[in-house]
Amino acid sequence: MPNIFRSCYQIIFKFCFTPLPFYNVFYSFPCKFPLRCILCDDMYKIVLSNLTFPFIYSLQKNGLFSGQQLIIFTSQDAHYSVEKLAMFMGFGSESVCKIETDQYGKMDIGDLETKVKHYINKGARPLMVSATAGTTVLGAFDDLNCVADICEKYNMWFHTDAAWGGGALITNKYRHLLNGIERSDSVTWNPHKMLIASQQCSTFLTRHKDILTNCHSTNATYLFQKDKFYDTSFDTGDKHIQCGRRADVYKFWFMWKAKGTNGLAEHVNQAFKMSEYITELIRERPGFELVLEKPECTNISFWYIPPSIRNMERGDLFNQKLNAVAPKIKEGMIKKGSMMITYQPLRELPNFFRLVLQSSNLTKDDMKYFLDEIEALGCNL
Amino acid sequence: MPNIFRSCYQIIFKFCFTPLPFYNVFYSFPCKFPLRCILCDDMYKIVLSNLTFPFIYSLQKNGLFSGQQLIIFTSQDAHYSVEKLAMFMGFGSESVCKIETDQYGKMDIGDLETKVKHYINKGARPLMVSATAGTTVLGAFDDLNCVADICEKYNMWFHTDAAWGGGALITNKYRHLLNGIERSDSVTWNPHKMLIASQQCSTFLTRHKDILTNCHSTNATYLFQKDKFYDTSFDTGDKHIQCGRRADVYKFWFMWKAKGTNGLAEHVNQAFKMSEYITELIRERPGFELVLEKPECTNISFWYIPPSIRNMERGDLFNQKLNAVAPKIKEGMIKKGSMMITYQPLRELPNFFRLVLQSSNLTKDDMKYFLDEIEALGCNL
Repeated sequence: MPNIFRSCYQIIFKFCFTPLPFYNVFYSFPCKFPLRCILCDDMYKIVLSNLTFPFIYSLQKNGLFSGQQLIIFTSQDAHYSVEKLAMFMGFGSESVCKIETDQYGKMDIGDLETKVKHYINKGARPLMVSATAGTTVLGAFDDLNCVADICEKYNMWFHTDAAWGGGALITNKYRHLLNGIERSDSVTWNPHKMLIASQQCSTFLTRHKDILTNCHSTNATYLFQKDKFYDTSFDTGDKHIQCGRRADVYKFWFMWKAKGTNGLAEHVNQAFKMSEYITELIRERPGFELVLEKPECTNISFWYIPPSIRNMERGDLFNQKLNAVAPKIKEGMIKKGSMMITYQPLRELPNFFRLVLQSSNLTKDDMKYFLDEIEALGCNL
Repeated sequence: MPNIFRSCYQIIFKFCFTPLPFYNVFYSFPCKFPLRCILCDDMYKIVLSNLTFPFIYSLQKNGLFSGQQLIIFTSQDAHYSVEKLAMFMGFGSESVCKIETDQYGKMDIGDLETKVKHYINKGARPLMVSATAGTTVLGAFDDLNCVADICEKYNMWFHTDAAWGGGALITNKYRHLLNGIERSDSVTWNPHKMLIASQQCSTFLTRHKDILTNCHSTNATYLFQKDKFYDTSFDTGDKHIQCGRRADVYKFWFMWKAKGTNGLAEHVNQAFKMSEYITELIRERPGFELVLEKPECTNISFWYIPPSIRNMERGDLFNQKLNAVAPKIKEGMIKKGSMMITYQPLRELPNFFRLVLQSSNLTKDDMKYFLDEIEALGCNL
């Protein structure tokens, strides 16, 4: 089984991260947030900065108590797990600094640098930037090269949350969306998302050899005996935080064997193709309006504006009425049992639909059906 | 589905924790360690101690930085996840205080109180005791009532790790092993262990209503919309730390439906019966020696002593030779493909076998086979 892990990840590296050597892997991790690992890398950096040796393991041994505040930067459109896990891991929500996004949902790099400087001046230590490749709502890709530059300049860990958008790496047509990912210190990529491996199948990749072992190992003697007759370096369990859980990478392995790289690429290309098609339909159809004129990923965000308010002046009252439309249509589709498309507000924007295409079995007819059905359920509101 | 969660846990409460009202539940949690939740409860206690309101959310917002060191107590035989997760969550391994165990592997309550006082005198804050109901190696049950007394006296959170031994709650014959569990602030119980639900199926129970919501909630608007047409209190996702993972409690639900409480009790009773039977066999068989004369759980720890050293004087040299026996026999069983029984050292004890019975399909013949096979593989060592 460890051989499968290794070759599975070697394939990922070969196709997606060449020529970067990504050494260590982590699978079946329940979240997207590698903070513990980062802490340890931070320790390595401290060594490199010629600080005294006893300080190296200080955080791992003594925890965060009485230490300098460590700050995590991520965009305001990043997944909520960044803040949730920061709370869980003792950093506190106040240690997560949210960076503004531009009109496309991308991290504002100027704002990032300003805020990094602000915290340095306050005496805190900027620890990492968690960039997002494919945000949850708008499907935006942060400019990874720009984030990498800032991380290098201020000596921060560079993490890329490609849980959703990582699937685009598999296809030559769309992998440019993730340019710069090869500079990441760590990457999360969930094959259960865009590649539709069966739930759950998450990967965590880092190019820092042995870092996970050094961070998480507790050498429990009842599990990780060294006096075995085979090479115990294959017993990799001690380097992650879980014990006795599913080896989810198996699913990915079998899927890859069955579909091949080309098959996975075709799957992704088809989902993108349909998302581009429905974007076109929405653009041309009266009563429909796009949130992003040119979505980068397969997330299509749009409003349906019923005839009753279609000619209203845009403003607070219009937004208030529009805000009630999507929940009402959603109620209709659920009760009828016809389809399920999520909706939500975003900052000052009223509720809009967010269609996210993952299936490559969807056809042009399906795309038309989505819009027809929304119109049928909402035209009298 | 939320209805299934609720009724599933209501059944657990009814059969296992009556008359204690356990309110909040958590499922599919990857580890056994409810620290984040505990932190929050600690905040509630601070409120009750009449401290100022702004301090209540201090830990959740500001993290552990510049705070008083918080100490977690657990026995030296407890699962390694306590230390691993303490490191992961920013407490540091030095904040985990290991309590000595007696000859049966139970936490030494005198040592617990001594160490609690020690840390108070040092200016640290004793946060919780994680007692174990069914330790991993020896299958020992800590005296939960004694631990509860100490926790009440020093105002600490009382957690019971019943991940393994919790299965005994289902049977009237063995539930006395967990007397006092009803006083716990929180309990972990993994139905995938003694009840052999399919991997993975973990539960986290706490009797503090709303505490998980208050600890973990981030109110991500793209997931937890409040403007739905049904009662959104059924949307419980925001109260745990995971997103988009399996609803593992389903497995437990179906298992319970299929086997019934009596069926589960019979399963547990049969595993205990066979463990008592093989203990008797080992006790009477030349060359075999028990680590614990009277195992409490279905963990049977024992040595096989080959004829070549059977008459040696007990001491360092004997232990050194005995230490090499179990790995060699294990190599033999793996290469032959006959069975898999784990072994490990424990403190000063040389390597011993640890047979842990989970299956109720095992018969007396199987028990004899285990010992015959070990003897056949080891008699010439």
